[in-house]
Amino acid sequence: MAATDIPFYQPAGDECEVFAHAWRQQLPVLIKGPTGCGKTRFVAHMAAQLGLPLFTVSCHDDLSAADLVGRHLIAGGDTRWCDGPLTQAVRAGGLCYLDEVVEARKDTTVVLHPLTDDRRMLPIERTGEVLQAPPGFMLVVSYNPGYQHVLKTLKPSTRQRFVALSFDFPRPEVECEVVRHEGGVDAELAWRLVRLGGQLRQLGGHDLDEGASTRLLVYAARLMASGMPARRACEVALAEPLSDEPDTLAALRAVIDTQFGS
Amino acid sequence: MAATDIPFYQPAGDECEVFAHAWRQQLPVLIKGPTGCGKTRFVAHMAAQLGLPLFTVSCHDDLSAADLVGRHLIAGGDTRWCDGPLTQAVRAGGLCYLDEVVEARKDTTVVLHPLTDDRRMLPIERTGEVLQAPPGFMLVVSYNPGYQHVLKTLKPSTRQRFVALSFDFPRPEVECEVVRHEGGVDAELAWRLVRLGGQLRQLGGHDLDEGASTRLLVYAARLMASGMPARRACEVALAEPLSDEPDTLAALRAVIDTQFGS
Amino acid sequence: MAATDIPFYQPAGDECEVFAHAWRQQLPVLIKGPTGCGKTRFVAHMAAQLGLPLFTVSCHDDLSAADLVGRHLIAGGDTRWCDGPLTQAVRAGGLCYLDEVVEARKDTTVVLHPLTDDRRMLPIERTGEVLQAPPGFMLVVSYNPGYQHVLKTLKPSTRQRFVALSFDFPRPEVECEVVRHEGGVDAELAWRLVRLGGQLRQLGGHDLDEGASTRLLVYAARLMASGMPARRACEVALAEPLSDEPDTLAALRAVIDTQFGS
Amino acid sequence: MAATDIPFYQPAGDECEVFAHAWRQQLPVLIKGPTGCGKTRFVAHMAAQLGLPLFTVSCHDDLSAADLVGRHLIAGGDTRWCDGPLTQAVRAGGLCYLDEVVEARKDTTVVLHPLTDDRRMLPIERTGEVLQAPPGFMLVVSYNPGYQHVLKTLKPSTRQRFVALSFDFPRPEVECEVVRHEGGVDAELAWRLVRLGGQLRQLGGHDLDEGASTRLLVYAARLMASGMPARRACEVALAEPLSDEPDTLAALRAVIDTQFGS
Amino acid sequence: MAATDIPFYQPAGDECEVFAHAWRQQLPVLIKGPTGCGKTRFVAHMAAQLGLPLFTVSCHDDLSAADLVGRHLIAGGDTRWCDGPLTQAVRAGGLCYLDEVVEARKDTTVVLHPLTDDRRMLPIERTGEVLQAPPGFMLVVSYNPGYQHVLKTLKPSTRQRFVALSFDFPRPEVECEVVRHEGGVDAELAWRLVRLGGQLRQLGGHDLDEGASTRLLVYAARLMASGMPARRACEVALAEPLSDEPDTLAALRAVIDTQFGS
Amino acid sequence: MAATDIPFYQPAGDECEVFAHAWRQQLPVLIKGPTGCGKTRFVAHMAAQLGLPLFTVSCHDDLSAADLVGRHLIAGGDTRWCDGPLTQAVRAGGLCYLDEVVEARKDTTVVLHPLTDDRRMLPIERTGEVLQAPPGFMLVVSYNPGYQHVLKTLKPSTRQRFVALSFDFPRPEVECEVVRHEGGVDAELAWRLVRLGGQLRQLGGHDLDEGASTRLLVYAARLMASGMPARRACEVALAEPLSDEPDTLAALRAVIDTQFGS
Repeated sequence: MAATDIPFYQPAGDECEVFAHAWRQQLPVLIKGPTGCGKTRFVAHMAAQLGLPLFTVSCHDDLSAADLVGRHLIAGGDTRWCDGPLTQAVRAGGLCYLDEVVEARKDTTVVLHPLTDDRRMLPIERTGEVLQAPPGFMLVVSYNPGYQHVLKTLKPSTRQRFVALSFDFPRPEVECEVVRHEGGVDAELAWRLVRLGGQLRQLGGHDLDEGASTRLLVYAARLMASGMPARRACEVALAEPLSDEPDTLAALRAVIDTQFGS
Repeated sequence: MAATDIPFYQPAGDECEVFAHAWRQQLPVLIKGPTGCGKTRFVAHMAAQLGLPLFTVSCHDDLSAADLVGRHLIAGGDTRWCDGPLTQAVRAGGLCYLDEVVEARKDTTVVLHPLTDDRRMLPIERTGEVLQAPPGFMLVVSYNPGYQHVLKTLKPSTRQRFVALSFDFPRPEVECEVVRHEGGVDAELAWRLVRLGGQLRQLGGHDLDEGASTRLLVYAARLMASGMPARRACEVALAEPLSDEPDTLAALRAVIDTQFGS
Repeated sequence: MAATDIPFYQPAGDECEVFAHAWRQQLPVLIKGPTGCGKTRFVAHMAAQLGLPLFTVSCHDDLSAADLVGRHLIAGGDTRWCDGPLTQAVRAGGLCYLDEVVEARKDTTVVLHPLTDDRRMLPIERTGEVLQAPPGFMLVVSYNPGYQHVLKTLKPSTRQRFVALSFDFPRPEVECEVVRHEGGVDAELAWRLVRLGGQLRQLGGHDLDEGASTRLLVYAARLMASGMPARRACEVALAEPLSDEPDTLAALRAVIDTQFGS
Repeated sequence: MAATDIPFYQPAGDECEVFAHAWRQQLPVLIKGPTGCGKTRFVAHMAAQLGLPLFTVSCHDDLSAADLVGRHLIAGGDTRWCDGPLTQAVRAGGLCYLDEVVEARKDTTVVLHPLTDDRRMLPIERTGEVLQAPPGFMLVVSYNPGYQHVLKTLKPSTRQRFVALSFDFPRPEVECEVVRHEGGVDAELAWRLVRLGGQLRQLGGHDLDEGASTRLLVYAARLMASGMPARRACEVALAEPLSDEPDTLAALRAVIDTQFGS
Repeated sequence: MAATDIPFYQPAGDECEVFAHAWRQQLPVLIKGPTGCGKTRFVAHMAAQLGLPLFTVSCHDDLSAADLVGRHLIAGGDTRWCDGPLTQAVRAGGLCYLDEVVEARKDTTVVLHPLTDDRRMLPIERTGEVLQAPPGFMLVVSYNPGYQHVLKTLKPSTRQRFVALSFDFPRPEVECEVVRHEGGVDAELAWRLVRLGGQLRQLGGHDLDEGASTRLLVYAARLMASGMPARRACEVALAEPLSDEPDTLAALRAVIDTQFGS
Repeated sequence: MAATDIPFYQPAGDECEVFAHAWRQQLPVLIKGPTGCGKTRFVAHMAAQLGLPLFTVSCHDDLSAADLVGRHLIAGGDTRWCDGPLTQAVRAGGLCYLDEVVEARKDTTVVLHPLTDDRRMLPIERTGEVLQAPPGFMLVVSYNPGYQHVLKTLKPSTRQRFVALSFDFPRPEVECEVVRHEGGVDAELAWRLVRLGGQLRQLGGHDLDEGASTRLLVYAARLMASGMPARRACEVALAEPLSDEPDTLAALRAVIDTQFGS
């Protein structure tokens, strides 16, 4: 695979090395971090770097074990087995990435257990088949510790099966490079947006569940690149998506004005 | 498409320009605003303006990911895949509008994630197909911040994937034009109804969840145009739909009397 | 249709005119009122008056959107679509009446939305069909504000789509005519029953959820017409159906004795 | 039908006449009363008396409208409609008896509505058929006001559709005749059991949900007729079924000893 | 059937006679008692004694009426009815035993009603068949009054349909005989275990839901008979199964040491 | 089977002997202990030692009786029965291991009852088959008493059917041998990791649900063996998987520094 086929990712530390070590040692990885800080991009980058096919699943309240492992479908009057993404990843020796794993139903985390200890196997109960994961197979899960519910946490018996990596918003130099590259703006405008992002993230004491993500900085940049006035672009990309409260919105707009006010 | 085929919409600000910028930059849009203020009409107007086929879904408690993406139906003993409205919109490169998205089940908001970041793809897990959204495809969602439940909010990880626009009741000049055009009454009667609407919206301190919408003003106008006495038309269109409480109804009628009393 | 085919309905005010205006203006109607006051009869009367086929649905906890719109049935190995009553009413240009609409599941009220704004359309998501309602089609819903649960109310975004009419027990002259006509008794006995009904409805301070309905007065009349002693007929038709509490029943019987005591 | 084919029932008052009047007037009947006082037997007796086929349904938490009305079954690759007991009763012009109707799911009580007002019709939504009930058809429901849950009551809009009859334990002379006839014992032993039943029902202040039913008196009689010692028969038939509490059981046994002690 | 084919059961009182009387009088029986005191064995013994085929069902949270009565299965494109254990018992004129009946879903207890009054019939609603129970048929249910939940009790209308028998742990002489016979140890060791069991059951004030059952005494005996040291056998069979609390376990071990300490 | 085919297990006490005694006496076993202390490995070791095929099921919230026992699948238009893992184990006379049994739905624990008393039978209700377990069959269940929910405990009537064994983290000498063997490091590094594990488990007073498991010590060893710096390997394998709280993580890192600090 040519280097240019590898999705752009600007490392913030040794996360690429830790990930590669874990893969070589056949250990599963848990990635923790806030919304929009680049977890999904990082996994796509590493999968390409290691030459592994990538199977991504966005987890949700109704995601069941059958959605991961597979199910029977009726065809021509017969039931035909149809592999789910986890089973496909095991057969292909690829990387299976479960995004926001705590959102999934409990039975899904349990099908991961035999894959995350020394057995590295996937029993498919409905067919009786037991798959032995090839050396290349890797399981990666992510979650956001910032807004977990009481009812939505990983059980210790699941957590203690993973090597864990903490992510945070990228350092300013890294984030600036990302905004410039993805947003299609010049370095100076990217810096102003990154500085604004930093200021917005420090707006504590308000009902903000999370600070403005790198993704939203890129949105603002792209709207400006499209010709929208800077201040209005920041308003619709960096204020309105964060809150519905008039007071909070006013505070966000005041910060925007310090960088892009008339 | 001839201009006369474009649904009537009276802009209140730069919302048409912001929407067009977001579409050109392939960014999804979140529309916030109260009941009956014209969100659905705005989306229909913009879809026609941009020449996009429109796929509208009214979200509700039981709307599942399968309702959006599609499902297998049995035909002639075989299972046949049947695209849902979101998949249809992606294939057609059209506009998919999810009205009151917070009402939907959680799994529906998660299928939106891969469509709302730079991947712009729709994985159809049940068939194994992965669709790449064409440049024309746009996702628009709306919700009403005025009466959200604690359990019914957009997660930050979903919100931070959208450019957001706030809507409110239109300015009097704009609303008057809408009531006149849609209600089939003359400008003077339209003005009296719009003034009444403004007064009714200021009736704080009562158990009114929401003020009278522009839609209800149009209803009152149409009943008058049909020959119903003005005061009675206001009563059945602007008082009874808003409350069941005798005290509140009396207060609403008193306000109606100031404009249309005998 | 001959006038004699129109179900008997004794108007209490201008409700027939308001209903007819709303139908001519293609506006949906919400009827509010207590149990057994004649809402269902009124709708049947108006449907016959306007020459519209009537499709009535008694709503309940498990009534889903599919029950209204339709569903696929398996026949000869194929799935065949089967219209629900709402779809039948739209196709026939008739009147669809949803009795006690707040009892239905939330997803049912949402399928009503595109039919209750200017679009007047019914998208059938499972088949991909979109029906445009013909001019004759009218949607009518009813509910009883007297014993709504906290969890069972119409959302403002639904309420504000209807012209609303309040019903109450009929005026004595009207009710007397109804009891005479339906109960098969003479005018004098009808008057005594209507007076008794009025007294029973004033029995506040007891655990009565609702006062004796016009329907129960008709029941008592019919039992008397069948030869049952008047006092016993009132007991089984006007006391026992209203309460299980001995104190309340004694109070009800005492009132009955004032009219029909030995 | 020969009189000897009519199930034995000892009237306690005018309940047979009221029931017959209601049937002649085509009014539905609600029977209220404690466990084991003879409600089911009374309905069987009246059905035979009036020459009506009887369809009995014991209601429970999972009884749905489909269980009453009918459902589609698959046969030979086709779906075939299969009438439920309510539909069978309507078609046959018979008596449908819903025992403990408040236990059923809410949607079942609502399918009863069109059958319990002047329409007397049963719409079968799944097939589109609408049945008109023949004159002979009668609907009877029962419930026990003694241990209703807050969540399990009849809504006023349902209650006010029935003529209601209150049942209680039979008067001593009547109960004695029942115990003698059903229990196979002589009149003197029957009297002792009936006196004991009366004493046990007065045991207030203990955790007894309900007093000993006539049915349990019959059980004790039959065990004695089978040769079991009287005191032990009372213990297993009149004490142990009523409570698990040692104190309450001791009190019950003390009362038993006053009639059948050594 | 040879006496040696009848499962061993050591009577504690007149329970065998009461059971046989009830069977002869066609009355259903309710057995109350703690875990592991021999209820299941008693029923097996009586079924063999009376020459009745036995159908046992362990009840649980998801046991539905269909699990007891039967259901349709698809075979060769047709639906075929498949009797459940209750229906099998009725057809065979055998004994149906529902163990821990309060654990079952509410709809299961209600299908028992027509079988437990003088009708003795089983209506199979899904097929329309009504079975008349032959004279041999008997229904037996059991439950444990010691740890009932508030939500898990028998309704009075169900309880009052049964003759009831209370069970408790057997008297020492009886229990010793059971431990000797089932555990394969000599009388002296059996006595020491029974004495230990008595002491453990008196350990009040600790978080013990229930005292050591006769079954666990048999387990300890069998481990000793297999060659395990007595003290360790008591630890794994009589302490660890009863609690996870270190304090409680220490107290249990202290009692064990008084009988089997070094 | 050659000894080298038996999974490595380092005994901590007499657990192997107790297990073998229970198997010879056909008694089921309950294993209690914290996450990652070797319960699963122990069972695999014993199954191989005793020459029994092993059927492991990881229990979860949605695991139903049908998942254990089996279900009907449709094939060629017929329903075909498909054994679940418990049924397979009974037929094969093997060892069925239910990991974290308290997580399963209540109906699953009840299907175990007839297998865990002297009947040793598995009734398959859906097919009517009753399997008699062969002498070799053994049932083993495990759970973690450390973080049971109130709603997730074994009922006494289930617990009192098992011989129980308590597990804990292995003694240092045993754990060191495990880390050396599984982690691929020399004895000295293994000792440092085991000492660190002991220190981390004593970090009371913090929001740690459970201390670092032996498995995580092995993970850290393997990352070091792969070339990762020791301190960073401990951070990602022994700190990040245990907590998300900054304070707790700082405390964990401080302990790590005492062993592997610069």
